[in-house]
Amino acid sequence: MGYATAPGARPRALALGELHASLTDPVLDAMNFLNEVVSRFPEAISFAPGRPSEGAFEPDDLARYLRVYTEHLERELGWPRDRVRTQLFQYGRTNGIIHDLIARSLANDEGIHVPAEAVVVTTGCQEAMLLTLRALFARPEDTLLVSSPCYVGITGAARLLDIALCPVREGSGGPDPEALLAAVRETRAAGGRPRALYVVPDFANPSGASMTVAARERLLEIASQEDLLILEDDPYGFFVRAGTARPTLKALDRDRRVLHLGSFAKTALPGARVGYVIADQEVIGPAGERSLLADQLSKVKSMTTVNTSAVGQAVIGGLLLESDCRLREANAEAIAFYRANLNTLLGELERHFPAARRRALGVGWNEPDGGFFLVVDVPFVAGPKALERSAQDFGVLWTPMSDFYLDGGGDTQLRLSCSALDPGSIAEGVGRLAAFVTEQAAEADR
Amino acid sequence: MGYATAPGARPRALALGELHASLTDPVLDAMNFLNEVVSRFPEAISFAPGRPSEGAFEPDDLARYLRVYTEHLERELGWPRDRVRTQLFQYGRTNGIIHDLIARSLANDEGIHVPAEAVVVTTGCQEAMLLTLRALFARPEDTLLVSSPCYVGITGAARLLDIALCPVREGSGGPDPEALLAAVRETRAAGGRPRALYVVPDFANPSGASMTVAARERLLEIASQEDLLILEDDPYGFFVRAGTARPTLKALDRDRRVLHLGSFAKTALPGARVGYVIADQEVIGPAGERSLLADQLSKVKSMTTVNTSAVGQAVIGGLLLESDCRLREANAEAIAFYRANLNTLLGELERHFPAARRRALGVGWNEPDGGFFLVVDVPFVAGPKALERSAQDFGVLWTPMSDFYLDGGGDTQLRLSCSALDPGSIAEGVGRLAAFVTEQAAEADR
Repeated sequence: MGYATAPGARPRALALGELHASLTDPVLDAMNFLNEVVSRFPEAISFAPGRPSEGAFEPDDLARYLRVYTEHLERELGWPRDRVRTQLFQYGRTNGIIHDLIARSLANDEGIHVPAEAVVVTTGCQEAMLLTLRALFARPEDTLLVSSPCYVGITGAARLLDIALCPVREGSGGPDPEALLAAVRETRAAGGRPRALYVVPDFANPSGASMTVAARERLLEIASQEDLLILEDDPYGFFVRAGTARPTLKALDRDRRVLHLGSFAKTALPGARVGYVIADQEVIGPAGERSLLADQLSKVKSMTTVNTSAVGQAVIGGLLLESDCRLREANAEAIAFYRANLNTLLGELERHFPAARRRALGVGWNEPDGGFFLVVDVPFVAGPKALERSAQDFGVLWTPMSDFYLDGGGDTQLRLSCSALDPGSIAEGVGRLAAFVTEQAAEADR
Repeated sequence: MGYATAPGARPRALALGELHASLTDPVLDAMNFLNEVVSRFPEAISFAPGRPSEGAFEPDDLARYLRVYTEHLERELGWPRDRVRTQLFQYGRTNGIIHDLIARSLANDEGIHVPAEAVVVTTGCQEAMLLTLRALFARPEDTLLVSSPCYVGITGAARLLDIALCPVREGSGGPDPEALLAAVRETRAAGGRPRALYVVPDFANPSGASMTVAARERLLEIASQEDLLILEDDPYGFFVRAGTARPTLKALDRDRRVLHLGSFAKTALPGARVGYVIADQEVIGPAGERSLLADQLSKVKSMTTVNTSAVGQAVIGGLLLESDCRLREANAEAIAFYRANLNTLLGELERHFPAARRRALGVGWNEPDGGFFLVVDVPFVAGPKALERSAQDFGVLWTPMSDFYLDGGGDTQLRLSCSALDPGSIAEGVGRLAAFVTEQAAEADR
């Protein structure tokens, strides 16, 4: 049964090695280490977490959002008080109670037109990933392709479910459609069944890379041709720095190849823990009976969280109603804030590492069109030891890029996030980072 | 890839048979059928769902609970406004922010004394089950024993994770410890590894059965002897009808054999979707490093829902604070309400089926000491067809007990829940049920 005897103590202890393998996955260990370092150096300037800015949020806003939502039910929909009470108090519809408001917002903000019944409201986007993976992946050979470097939320959820993973290398324009095609064919040749690709098309976490519209069209073409589904995750799409917003894969999807995973953590507030997935694919049962994939996800959700908190949904519902279901417009200030922050970060990097200096040092970075993240190339191994040194001696935190690779890579890269800092901290932080990089480069040179 | 061509439509459909096997599990189908019948007959008196009463709840209570919680942070803990804002707005501690308030309530209400760090706050008790199963079940031979008939939430979660199940028959006093011992040995003989037993010791769903204190002690003894963990689920423990509350298994647990799964759905409100699990077991890593099982569950939770909604937690936190972390006292009215309802239900059954009549018909029922449920034996098959007839012709709904058995059984039993009805509806509903049962019995006799 996997108990080890704890010396001197009567209660038996469990052996970690006897617990599920996901608990000792390197990705989870890396994240734990990162959190631990961040908590040990609370005074450091942190480019590590991808948290949203708390902006103008006030705790009292919550009560107002709740009131706006209940008034909507009573006044606009004409619900009696008893029904409103049941909506907020009781167990509710598994797939959510604000699915209609989300569908309206998606139509306004993204030009995505789906029936409300195709929207599954989830406990944050993380649960949307979990439900989607559970429903779609049935056999050991079913393989999830992931754009690599990759957000750890999807690889972690796949580990929980023992799902096989295959990384597809990203270029500066996001996942390369031709590399995807090659990966699909290699997976098949090795006996795997490529089932879906996970991709963040806009300002990806961690790379900051974005796909061109042409690459999106080609990706959808390959998905059709190779009978692949696309899991599109788009938490940062609003936050454009340069150029204009591009259509999501779901907006371009004519063949229902795309499941669109959504989050309100960056565009509203993480504390409500409300996300969603659009699953408008048709499912056909053995006797020819038809349902939406969303209805199948509902069965999974009834066994993960039963339903998403009505209180959390009411908060997001009120917030959507206040903006007349135009969340992009409601995010105008946030969009400007993140744009300014990313511009400040790029400007400070340029100031501290002008062209000649970065050539001499072997330093470089990408210039994302938006989002929260960019990646810096450095002339030394940017792993846990370097991070510890950076925090301890220079008071600046960042994320090792190697944490985001399944198959090695990113050893001499670090991710900077500028979403939760003010411009002054960004300037000061880049100064500290420059001092750290300079010292490490000199050491590496010796 | 498992796509079937949908005639006349360009988008391809997914074949249900290619999705995960849990989606076609009979338990899930049974629950779907039940929900569908309930929704088709909204005017029927429903003894089907195990929902809590909405009692004196008012939507405005939510804003008050939020205020009580934030005032606690500001005034009692002296937090600055910025920190309060972050607590409600931002991503938070994976294992929750009201773990200390829950630990205090458990000490006051249950005499369970654990460090706050051993409490994992979850998105309802369902997520607590999911996390626990995922962490503890590592290999295909790892087997979950379940008290049978069994709550579908645990069997459904096990199905999602492809975990092997072994039912242990319940007697009138809950699971029989000796039957458990036999099941453990049979599982081992068949190459399985019995890992844990799931049990509801008080007023079980669906049977209403409760374990005596002696049976609890014996169960813990067997767990120790056979190196088993106990997953104790106790959502109804407060709601005593006859006699006094018995100690939970966790309160009797001297050997850290028990993981205690908790819910606020019945004692506070389901709409907050807040539950928890106490996991105070020690875990030892390969290099001897020690952690709490709660810390390991945190890694799983970071990949299911990241953290439980801060808004939902703040609502429950405020409600706990209002009662000075004495939730049992705060439930005095609810306890009286459910007691009266169960007494009404038992009285009406007796009135409609006096001894001679029930002997003649072959009808009987158990008399639970508390909780929401009881089981009626009837002289006909109480399956989907009978339920449809009962709803259509008699305007009364109930739950077929066969839905709760993994290995057959319960064919001529039905579950009645009286938690969400008023006494008048219970009386009228039992009258309708008696007419239905009488007609069915006469038909079965012909």
